[in-house]
Amino acid sequence: MMKPAVILLSGGLDSATVLAIAQAQGYECHALSFDYGQRHGAELAAAVRVADHFGVADRKLIRIGLDAIGGSALTDANIAVPDHPQAGIPVTYVPARNTVFLSFALGWAEVLGNADIFIGVNAVDYSGYPDCRPEYIEAFRNLAKLATKAGVEGADIHIHTPLIQLSKAEIIQQGVALGVDYALTVSCYAADPEGRACGVCDACRLRAAGFREAGVVDPTRYVAR
Amino acid sequence: MMKPAVILLSGGLDSATVLAIAQAQGYECHALSFDYGQRHGAELAAAVRVADHFGVADRKLIRIGLDAIGGSALTDANIAVPDHPQAGIPVTYVPARNTVFLSFALGWAEVLGNADIFIGVNAVDYSGYPDCRPEYIEAFRNLAKLATKAGVEGADIHIHTPLIQLSKAEIIQQGVALGVDYALTVSCYAADPEGRACGVCDACRLRAAGFREAGVVDPTRYVAR
Repeated sequence: MMKPAVILLSGGLDSATVLAIAQAQGYECHALSFDYGQRHGAELAAAVRVADHFGVADRKLIRIGLDAIGGSALTDANIAVPDHPQAGIPVTYVPARNTVFLSFALGWAEVLGNADIFIGVNAVDYSGYPDCRPEYIEAFRNLAKLATKAGVEGADIHIHTPLIQLSKAEIIQQGVALGVDYALTVSCYAADPEGRACGVCDACRLRAAGFREAGVVDPTRYVAR
Repeated sequence: MMKPAVILLSGGLDSATVLAIAQAQGYECHALSFDYGQRHGAELAAAVRVADHFGVADRKLIRIGLDAIGGSALTDANIAVPDHPQAGIPVTYVPARNTVFLSFALGWAEVLGNADIFIGVNAVDYSGYPDCRPEYIEAFRNLAKLATKAGVEGADIHIHTPLIQLSKAEIIQQGVALGVDYALTVSCYAADPEGRACGVCDACRLRAAGFREAGVVDPTRYVAR
């Protein structure tokens, strides 16, 4: 029997690569996406395309009211997405987002029978979010062991972060080797409804630089300027 | 200035007591409730009554699709709420529920500026849920320190669990002393739409025994049998 895994799938470049890695490792993949009031709803359409492209065992889209809490340019219409780099933790940081996402993944993993969890966090070419660091993931794994039936009964809880030490270029090279079609993905924080990228936000700049550095043709569609 | 706090408020007996304790300690209380597809929707009406009774600074009800994950008698119509005690972790356990709830509380606490968090978990007269134990809460606090701007900048994160070592009778005595009107609260896992309790589920039995032991008249309304 294939081991089940819950894959956090945003529809962006990183999580699509993570899904490809989990499938290549032989996991039965369950894709989990969230509608959290993010501005870039085009990402959700991308998540569906990517999940279907890989023929996952199951996929769920869970609506969660993170926008009720606000505090981020990604969920609050009163905070602008910046078009230039910022110092420190940027306004696109969504408070507790990865903690919320991992919590739901943990719940589904428990229902599936202590499934593994895959998340595409990255501590190299990232945006300075605290909840993308290895010590954060280790703290969540420790929490999960105490929070779940399986953990209480002594089972290990596996949270895979296959991208955590890779550069964006290395992620792209690995994805291309595994057959990821990055034209299906949307990374832009301010994509238009058709999924065309703005080209100037943090996520766009990291992505474009990654393709350049990887020597891979960038399939991203940009809005006309 | 009053220190802000996020209070996880279910509408049950325990969380109403926690809200009273936080207010008595001088916190500016922000009540956070969830519609997670629980069967006992009467609990949510109770949460609103309790929050309004105490005149909280703000309250939010966040809809989250935990029912999409299932795996519990509280969120899955195919699993019956038991009418007798069970050994081990019971079927009313909702996978990762407290982790999900605390994650949202952490997000709101961060937006409010490192607010304290209050949760009414209890490790004495409880139902055997792993995510109600002190070591679980400590693991979440450790996670929160690594997950948040405030934590990264060195601030302490406070998660208050004022009920964790109290018996149900002690909780009720403390609440009565603080003016909690328990007639406003609903604990039953299978309450009818008017909030009348079944009298036989785990939550009903713990609650009724608590009032008996505390020597306090039980104001709970039960369905006719």
